[in-house]
Amino acid sequence: MKFVIPSVNEDARAQALLRQTTLTKPSGALGRLENLSAWCAAVQGICPPTTFQHPALVIFAGDHGVARSSKVSAYPPEVTAMMVINFSHGGAAANVLAKQHNAQLFSYDISVTPNSEYLNLVSSDVRDFHVVDGSNDIALGDAISLGVAHAAFQAGLAIAARIVDTGADLFIPGDMGIGNTTAAAAVIGHFIGASAEEITGTGTGIDERSLACKREVVGAAIERMRDRDPLEALASGSGADIVAMTATLIGVATAKIPILLDGVVSSAAAVAAEHLAPGVREWMVAGHQSTEPGQSRALAFLDRDPILDLGMRLGEGSGALTALPIINSAILTLAEMATFEQANVSDRIS
Amino acid sequence: MKFVIPSVNEDARAQALLRQTTLTKPSGALGRLENLSAWCAAVQGICPPTTFQHPALVIFAGDHGVARSSKVSAYPPEVTAMMVINFSHGGAAANVLAKQHNAQLFSYDISVTPNSEYLNLVSSDVRDFHVVDGSNDIALGDAISLGVAHAAFQAGLAIAARIVDTGADLFIPGDMGIGNTTAAAAVIGHFIGASAEEITGTGTGIDERSLACKREVVGAAIERMRDRDPLEALASGSGADIVAMTATLIGVATAKIPILLDGVVSSAAAVAAEHLAPGVREWMVAGHQSTEPGQSRALAFLDRDPILDLGMRLGEGSGALTALPIINSAILTLAEMATFEQANVSDRIS
Repeated sequence: MKFVIPSVNEDARAQALLRQTTLTKPSGALGRLENLSAWCAAVQGICPPTTFQHPALVIFAGDHGVARSSKVSAYPPEVTAMMVINFSHGGAAANVLAKQHNAQLFSYDISVTPNSEYLNLVSSDVRDFHVVDGSNDIALGDAISLGVAHAAFQAGLAIAARIVDTGADLFIPGDMGIGNTTAAAAVIGHFIGASAEEITGTGTGIDERSLACKREVVGAAIERMRDRDPLEALASGSGADIVAMTATLIGVATAKIPILLDGVVSSAAAVAAEHLAPGVREWMVAGHQSTEPGQSRALAFLDRDPILDLGMRLGEGSGALTALPIINSAILTLAEMATFEQANVSDRIS
Repeated sequence: MKFVIPSVNEDARAQALLRQTTLTKPSGALGRLENLSAWCAAVQGICPPTTFQHPALVIFAGDHGVARSSKVSAYPPEVTAMMVINFSHGGAAANVLAKQHNAQLFSYDISVTPNSEYLNLVSSDVRDFHVVDGSNDIALGDAISLGVAHAAFQAGLAIAARIVDTGADLFIPGDMGIGNTTAAAAVIGHFIGASAEEITGTGTGIDERSLACKREVVGAAIERMRDRDPLEALASGSGADIVAMTATLIGVATAKIPILLDGVVSSAAAVAAEHLAPGVREWMVAGHQSTEPGQSRALAFLDRDPILDLGMRLGEGSGALTALPIINSAILTLAEMATFEQANVSDRIS
């Protein structure tokens, strides 16, 4: 697999940074908003950029066998399917936050293990990109076969194409999958070369004993992933949902749609995407710092500073959605503030 | 002066925290949003609370003599008046961010030194609460007389009454005044008992030499404020704008309007307000962490954790406005998410 990621527009970024110095405020006084506005200019290829009007959130849902066999999560695996139903009914945090910020929410079942109630309650488009009935337990062996990984990757590219078709101007990768922070830790550990101890966290909330078990699983997965090519490594240590998300990140960036990362799962997919398609990270900004230690490491590797640090650890794209208005604040201040010249304000001691 | 601050509603806060545990997410997974939602319930006296629809920003503008005589700011004092004109014309960061979030912006000249251009260009209501033509140099002596301090305090209470009349449901104190971070540092140092070294920062941007000068001014002011009663201390070491802001904070909290603090100036006024009217801090939440060291100390004294930490240092209410949608995210998730029972989702491993 070979992907050519388009460059972001460095001229527009430079123009934005220059324009920031002409606005009626001390230089640098808007802090992170200034660099953020410059990133927006770079990905939109124009200065000043315009606010993101059509953000699209895709929640990649998938089951992870490890959640059944090992004590790595506070929740039973059945919760994945229940939450996909909850997304359909508008009851999850992601629904509420997407509505607040006029983001379109797409929930796609990549690898949920179905049951009859689930199949009755979710609308059929949720399963348009279904690849496999659950990923296998990474404590015991590969999560998915290489064939399934290829199918998941293609599903991810197809999702990207659909997102492009909706006219989205910003993409948010969200996740839902009991056990998925275990897989995400393995992916981060493998691709950035960190140990299970450094990158394994408590996910949605587990005790010390479960954390020790989770670390062991992550360590075994990293061991198995070693020296394998990127897609093989993902097939071994992650799951179909994470493979699909990785592909979607590459797909949307190829179409020049910028990406607002969420928590540890999307950061893991972003690290994998950067390995498969160097430069894709330039299209990304990090919405928030999650409580998972692996996520900070992933963001450092991607050279992305998180906008928020609110102790969130929910996934679903919730942290990214919460950060969204701040990105628009960055754009609006750059685009709409008066310059010193327009306002006839002294810009320095004469 | 004696003020009785009404209590926030602890029952509503407790209900909110309990409700958080019933929503379709792991307990605590929304991080800071959860406590924030509980604060909103406590100040609104109801659970779930409703989003803030009528936030009001008041920018307290005033000149500080110290900015003329000493090298404590990167800007000449005339910029204060120019920026008040800029607010009238909608060109400042505060205007742009207020518009983004449907906040009403009021810019009041408490102690701006007028010139004829300024008087021609600002609308007359900007000067409705004008108290004095500039506060004096706190490097040399008291900023204002006790008489002027009383007048400024009354002006602040009158501003609070006007804000209440507009139907505001959230109050944001903003500031504009070249030299005002010097005064704010003195106020914080005095009221929390910290030294000039600990609390003096670079404001909108000064070099090491100017910082040393600023520290000296702050130290002298703190020395002069020692053992004086709160309003006398404010008259000596702050300025009419900060006195007015302090009174407005007390006035709006008395009317049960919650307060979203901005940077170091509003945090200084909040510390003074808490001394004059214990309990007023319960009506406050901190919008952001500014780059000024005094602000962190003030927020610690007030026991308020900042929502954002974006390296902002502009004042005007800009940091608070940037945090505003996050408060509404906290409210919306609490109010609109489905419960486990409604969604029929397992809330724990059975």
